[in-house]
Amino acid sequence: MRAVQPRSRQQTLALRRQLVGSSCKLFFPTDPVKITEAKGQYMYDENGRQYLDCINNVAHVGHCHPDVVKAAHEQNQLLNTNSRYLHDNMVDYAERLSKTLPEKLCIFYFLNSGSEANDLALRLARQYTKHQDVIVLDHAYHGHLTSLIDISPYKFRNLEGQKEWVHVAPVPDTYRGLYRENHEDPVTAYADEVKNIIEHAQKRGRKIAAFFVESLPSVGGQIIPPAGYFQKVAEHVHKAGGVFIADEIQVGFGRVGRHFWAFQLQGEDFIPDIVTMGKPIGNGHPLACVATTKEIAEAFAATGVEYFNTFGGNPVSCAIGLAVLDVIEKEHLQAHATEVGNFLMKTLKEQQIKHPIIGDVRGCGLFIGVDLIKDQAERTPATAEAEELVTRLKEKYILLSTDGPGRNVLKFKPPMCFNMEDAKFVVETIDQILTDMEKECLSQKKTTVCST
Amino acid sequence: MRAVQPRSRQQTLALRRQLVGSSCKLFFPTDPVKITEAKGQYMYDENGRQYLDCINNVAHVGHCHPDVVKAAHEQNQLLNTNSRYLHDNMVDYAERLSKTLPEKLCIFYFLNSGSEANDLALRLARQYTKHQDVIVLDHAYHGHLTSLIDISPYKFRNLEGQKEWVHVAPVPDTYRGLYRENHEDPVTAYADEVKNIIEHAQKRGRKIAAFFVESLPSVGGQIIPPAGYFQKVAEHVHKAGGVFIADEIQVGFGRVGRHFWAFQLQGEDFIPDIVTMGKPIGNGHPLACVATTKEIAEAFAATGVEYFNTFGGNPVSCAIGLAVLDVIEKEHLQAHATEVGNFLMKTLKEQQIKHPIIGDVRGCGLFIGVDLIKDQAERTPATAEAEELVTRLKEKYILLSTDGPGRNVLKFKPPMCFNMEDAKFVVETIDQILTDMEKECLSQKKTTVCST
Repeated sequence: MRAVQPRSRQQTLALRRQLVGSSCKLFFPTDPVKITEAKGQYMYDENGRQYLDCINNVAHVGHCHPDVVKAAHEQNQLLNTNSRYLHDNMVDYAERLSKTLPEKLCIFYFLNSGSEANDLALRLARQYTKHQDVIVLDHAYHGHLTSLIDISPYKFRNLEGQKEWVHVAPVPDTYRGLYRENHEDPVTAYADEVKNIIEHAQKRGRKIAAFFVESLPSVGGQIIPPAGYFQKVAEHVHKAGGVFIADEIQVGFGRVGRHFWAFQLQGEDFIPDIVTMGKPIGNGHPLACVATTKEIAEAFAATGVEYFNTFGGNPVSCAIGLAVLDVIEKEHLQAHATEVGNFLMKTLKEQQIKHPIIGDVRGCGLFIGVDLIKDQAERTPATAEAEELVTRLKEKYILLSTDGPGRNVLKFKPPMCFNMEDAKFVVETIDQILTDMEKECLSQKKTTVCST
Repeated sequence: MRAVQPRSRQQTLALRRQLVGSSCKLFFPTDPVKITEAKGQYMYDENGRQYLDCINNVAHVGHCHPDVVKAAHEQNQLLNTNSRYLHDNMVDYAERLSKTLPEKLCIFYFLNSGSEANDLALRLARQYTKHQDVIVLDHAYHGHLTSLIDISPYKFRNLEGQKEWVHVAPVPDTYRGLYRENHEDPVTAYADEVKNIIEHAQKRGRKIAAFFVESLPSVGGQIIPPAGYFQKVAEHVHKAGGVFIADEIQVGFGRVGRHFWAFQLQGEDFIPDIVTMGKPIGNGHPLACVATTKEIAEAFAATGVEYFNTFGGNPVSCAIGLAVLDVIEKEHLQAHATEVGNFLMKTLKEQQIKHPIIGDVRGCGLFIGVDLIKDQAERTPATAEAEELVTRLKEKYILLSTDGPGRNVLKFKPPMCFNMEDAKFVVETIDQILTDMEKECLSQKKTTVCST
C-alpha cells in the first residue's frame, strides 16, 4: 500500500535515482525542486515555499484551473472509453477547434502527446505526397519518438546523426542567424535557402514530403521568423510536391496574444497543410491533435488501413480540451497575453539598455526570449552567465530556464494567467541579479560571469 | 460555447464523418453505437440501454471505478506538472510496479500510450545492443507510430511493406499454426524458426537488436504460446546479442489471473529484458510504462541525451496508476479473473461440443479466444459467421469482437469485474444465436453462415 507519510526531498531523490531511468533529467539536477502543489502561475514546494512559474506552457490556463479540474471530474465519473463509439465530446471539440483555424483545416485526429501528433503528421504527409524526405530547421526539436528524433537536429546530432531523407535549413533568426536585421530581405534570403535545399535534394533523386517547422522555433532559441517567410517556403515546398507542417505544440492556443495560432503571425495569406497541437491543449492532461485538409485525410484513408489510438479522443480528454478553450475565451487570455507580454517586452527592453549582457529581447504575447551575449560584436552566447542567472532566480523562487543552441536565451512561456505584478517582479529580480553579477565581475570575484 | 442539448446519434455521426479523419473507424460502422455512460462492465447508450462490455481491456478495474476517479480528482486539484520536478507519486508508483516484476526489471520510464512505450523499448534495445534489426511474430500489432508500423505485420502488409531490418517469425499457435497440438515438440520447433531467422539474417550481415513479442498475441488471434517458448527464443536472441521485449500492453496487470504479467505463464525461469505496459495501466487515462534492467537503462543514458516526455510520469497519471494497482489488490481481481475465466472457458468448451463452428477455446484468466471454423479438417476461418455472431450479439446488447488474421476469433478481454452472471449470460446468448444460425442454415435461408 502507499506511503502515508510524504517522503523528504532527499528520500524522493534517492528513490528516483534508484528507480527512474537517468535519461529522464531533473531541473537543477544538483539541487532539484520538489513541487507538491500549484495554483495559477505559482508552484509550491514541500515546505510551502511559493515559486513563480515563468516556463510551464503546459499549465496553459493556470495550474489546476478549477474549471478544467471540474470538467475532468464530471466526465471521469460518467464515461472514459475509446473513439470506436460515438460520443458528443469528440465532435463538439473538433467543431470548436475548427472555428479557431482557417476553413481548409477541417479534419481532426486526437492523440495523447505532441510527439504522437508529429509522428502522425509525418505519416499523413508521406501518404499524401508519396514522398519521403523532410526539411527541418536547424536546432529543431519535434519530439521523443524514433521518427521525430530523425527530424530533430537538436537530438540527432548527439545520436545516430542525420538520415539521408532529412534536410536541415538555417533557422530564420534575424538576430544571430545567417541573415540578420541589417540584411535587405531576410525573408527571401532564408526562403531561398530552403529552395536551394529542395533543388539539391531533387538533383540527387530525392522527393520532399514536408517542410516541418515550429511556428515559433522554441528549443532553437525562442525565434520569431520574419513575417512572409512561411509563405515563400510553402511556395517552394508545394512546387516540389511537399506539404507545410506547422508544429504549434509549444506556441499555440493564444500564447502569442493577437492570434490563436502562432503561424497566423505570418499573415492572413498563409495556411499550413497540417497543424499539430500538444502541450497546452489539455492544461497538463495527455492530449494532442492533428488538424489537416480533406485532401490529405482522404489520401491517408485511401489505404484502407485503420488509424486507432487507444486513448486518443476519449470523452475525458475531449471534455478537458473543451474546458481549456472555454477558459481561454471566458478569461480573455489572449488579450491578457498581449497586455502582459507587451509590458514584459517593454520592461525587458529597458533592462537591455541598462545591462549589456542582454543582446536581444524578442517575442510575442507570452512567448519571449532574452538573448544573453558576451560581446556585442560577435554576439557570443553568454552560456555560463545565463545558467548563473537562472540559478540565482531559482534562489529567489522564480522558475525560468534557457534554450537555444548556446543555452543562452532566457525563455518566458508562463501559464497564461501570469500577470503584470508577476512580470514586474521577475524583471526587477533579473535587474537586481544582473546588477550584482556586474558588480562581482568588476570586483573580479567571478570572472566567469563577466560581460562587456 | 458548448452545445447544451445532447446531439442525436445521427447528428453525432454526421459531425464525426465531417470532422474526424475517416481512418478512425467506428465499431459497427453501418450502425454505430453511441455510448454516454459506463459503470463496471456495463456501458449505456443515449437511450439508457445497457450493454455488457466483453472487450474493453482498458477499463481494467471497471468503467469509472470510483477509487480511480477519486484519485484523479484529488491529484488534479493539487498538482499536475512534468517530471523535471521531484514528486512522490512517480517514485511510489515505480516502487509499487517493481514489486510486481522480477528484481532484474528495476528501472522505469513513464509515458502516455502503449505506442510511446513500444517506441521507447525499440530505442532502448537499439542503443543497448548497437544493433538495428527486430524479429516479430506474424500478424503482430505493436502500435500506430511510424516505427511500430514497421514492426507490425498486421499493418505493414497493407502499407509500405516489410523493411529490410524486420524479420517475421511464425506465430507459436498450436491450433492453426505451423506446428500444432499433434507435433511432438512445438516449443522447440517454433523457437528453431526464430533461430533460423537469426542465422539467415546474420549471413546477410544483419544484427538482431530485439525479439519483440506480445506475451499473448492478441490481434494475432488470442494466442497462448506454449510454455517454454520464450525461454528458448530468448536464448537464441541473447546469443545473437539482442534483447527480449515483452509487450504486455493488452495482457498485463493480472488479466491472466494466476500471474500479474502474462510472460510469467512461460515459467519462473523466464525474464524479459524489457517490458512495455499500456492500455489497462490507467483504467482509460493515457498512461504507459517501460520497465527494463539497469544495464539497458545505463546504456541508454550513456549517450548523454535527455529523454523528456512532457506528460509522462506526471503526478496525476501516477496517482491514477497507483489507484489501479490498489483496486486490483483490494478487490482480488486476479483471483476473480481466474475464477470467472475458468468458468467461461468451461462453459465455452461445453458449447464447443454442441456447436461444430467452435473449433478451439483457448485462454487464461479473462483473456480468452474462441476460434470459429468452417470445417474441422482445414480449420478454415469462419469469418462471415463470426461477423454475423458479433452483430447479433450486439442486437442482444453484448459487445464482443473478433481478432486474428481471419477475423474469426471471438475475443474476450472484459473489464476485470466481469462476473459469473455476465459469463453465463454471454455464453447462453452465444448458444442461442449459434443454434438459430444453425437452424437457418439447415433451412437454407442463409447459406453463408453455415458450418459443418
